[in-house]
Amino acid sequence: MAHDDAPKLDAHYWRQQIRSGQWRQHTSGLAEGYVQCNIVILPATYAFDFLRYCQRNPQACPLIAVSEPGDYRLAALAADLDIRTDVPSYRLFRDGVLERELTGLTELWQDDWVTFAIGCSFSFEQALVAAGLEIRNISEGKNVPMYVTNRSTEAAGPFSGPLVVSMRPMTPADAIRAIQICSRFPAVHGAPVHFGDAQAIGISDLARPDYGDAVTIKPGEVPLFWACGVTPQQAIMQARPAICITHTPGHMLITDLLNQQLAAF
Amino acid sequence: MAHDDAPKLDAHYWRQQIRSGQWRQHTSGLAEGYVQCNIVILPATYAFDFLRYCQRNPQACPLIAVSEPGDYRLAALAADLDIRTDVPSYRLFRDGVLERELTGLTELWQDDWVTFAIGCSFSFEQALVAAGLEIRNISEGKNVPMYVTNRSTEAAGPFSGPLVVSMRPMTPADAIRAIQICSRFPAVHGAPVHFGDAQAIGISDLARPDYGDAVTIKPGEVPLFWACGVTPQQAIMQARPAICITHTPGHMLITDLLNQQLAAF
Repeated sequence: MAHDDAPKLDAHYWRQQIRSGQWRQHTSGLAEGYVQCNIVILPATYAFDFLRYCQRNPQACPLIAVSEPGDYRLAALAADLDIRTDVPSYRLFRDGVLERELTGLTELWQDDWVTFAIGCSFSFEQALVAAGLEIRNISEGKNVPMYVTNRSTEAAGPFSGPLVVSMRPMTPADAIRAIQICSRFPAVHGAPVHFGDAQAIGISDLARPDYGDAVTIKPGEVPLFWACGVTPQQAIMQARPAICITHTPGHMLITDLLNQQLAAF
Repeated sequence: MAHDDAPKLDAHYWRQQIRSGQWRQHTSGLAEGYVQCNIVILPATYAFDFLRYCQRNPQACPLIAVSEPGDYRLAALAADLDIRTDVPSYRLFRDGVLERELTGLTELWQDDWVTFAIGCSFSFEQALVAAGLEIRNISEGKNVPMYVTNRSTEAAGPFSGPLVVSMRPMTPADAIRAIQICSRFPAVHGAPVHFGDAQAIGISDLARPDYGDAVTIKPGEVPLFWACGVTPQQAIMQARPAICITHTPGHMLITDLLNQQLAAF
């Protein structure tokens, strides 16, 4: 099945498709209205440090749920969820280095592994589109451009590193509306962290993002910068844990939570 | 010095008074505008479980900061802060049982202790008063009434127990305004969790609170219920950690953060 032909069905349907191996592609646009999560799985020895890192950097690492050690369920996200099978593609890192991609964790699973589910920009992009705003990376069919900034995150134990941001250009009027809308959703990165002068946060050339694709910035538009879920991935690479599992970028965990349930008010 | 004569000075002044032993009373009304925090100190072996408990119950346990293990500083709250000396009165619990109150921790301090600073209702009460709302426990000079509900918190490791709420009666118009204002402050318990029918959350008699003092409910007013910082204390008693330090109720940590810095939008 091609991605563009994906039926408009709910989170449970897509989790079943993924669990049974019938869907291995990225999850952008699937199960519209439902929260999708970034996934980090670490041994319990790293879990308190990483949880403290997320607590200290809530815009970059907005935690939606944390599992009990060894428990592959996350009932707060979906009653039937099994994190060993419900992500379309996983990445396995040893000592901070990518070793390989995996389609499941059932055989690897260890009884001290802790799963962290972190909010994702898909949720706030949907809220912005629903409000009639144009999201340039969506309208140009590109991956959102991401940049490593000169701002440091707050360290916790071995976890530290620069803040990574995603960028979406808007007119000032749309930017103000976007700030209002995203402020309602702190669990999915919240309001932007900066707008305008890219050099002020250490970005030398918007046309050359560190991750993702460059997008058009039209006359009269300003770039808006949001804290990005690539930030915790960089912190993990820096900490070099003996083993770590993440989702493959874009291949998220689809939950039964509705984006609107995350609204702070 | 009597509490009513306390000078209107800033957080740093009051922390120095407390550190030098010149102030051992409760901190309500001191350092107006500055964030005060509930304090929980636990050995590192309990820290990941307790941090996960807070993450799962953010309205009852809104985390403002977590220390590195063994570090008695909390620079995110104040550059000069020393948690061993900067709380006017501490409580020492062994196996979940109150053993005694202390005026300092310098001699007891262990290099695996982790400090959790949790938001406090003083901050949102100040925001409500600033908006012209009457807070009954303040106008009647009483401690806010608190009730154990029939709602369970989300457990994490050994930490579990009922949700405890504080109650403030208001007219419907003031209640609506209070919900709007408190929604801006998720780091200090946020919006109420319930209003109206007390029996619906397992409270049989508002005139007999489980903690604090009963307050007058006038004709036409409804009771509003907020998640309360006594909730994590109950969870700690339930978990029976070998050792645990908290502040003595009302005797909070005064930080250099401004209440307005906690506003979500």
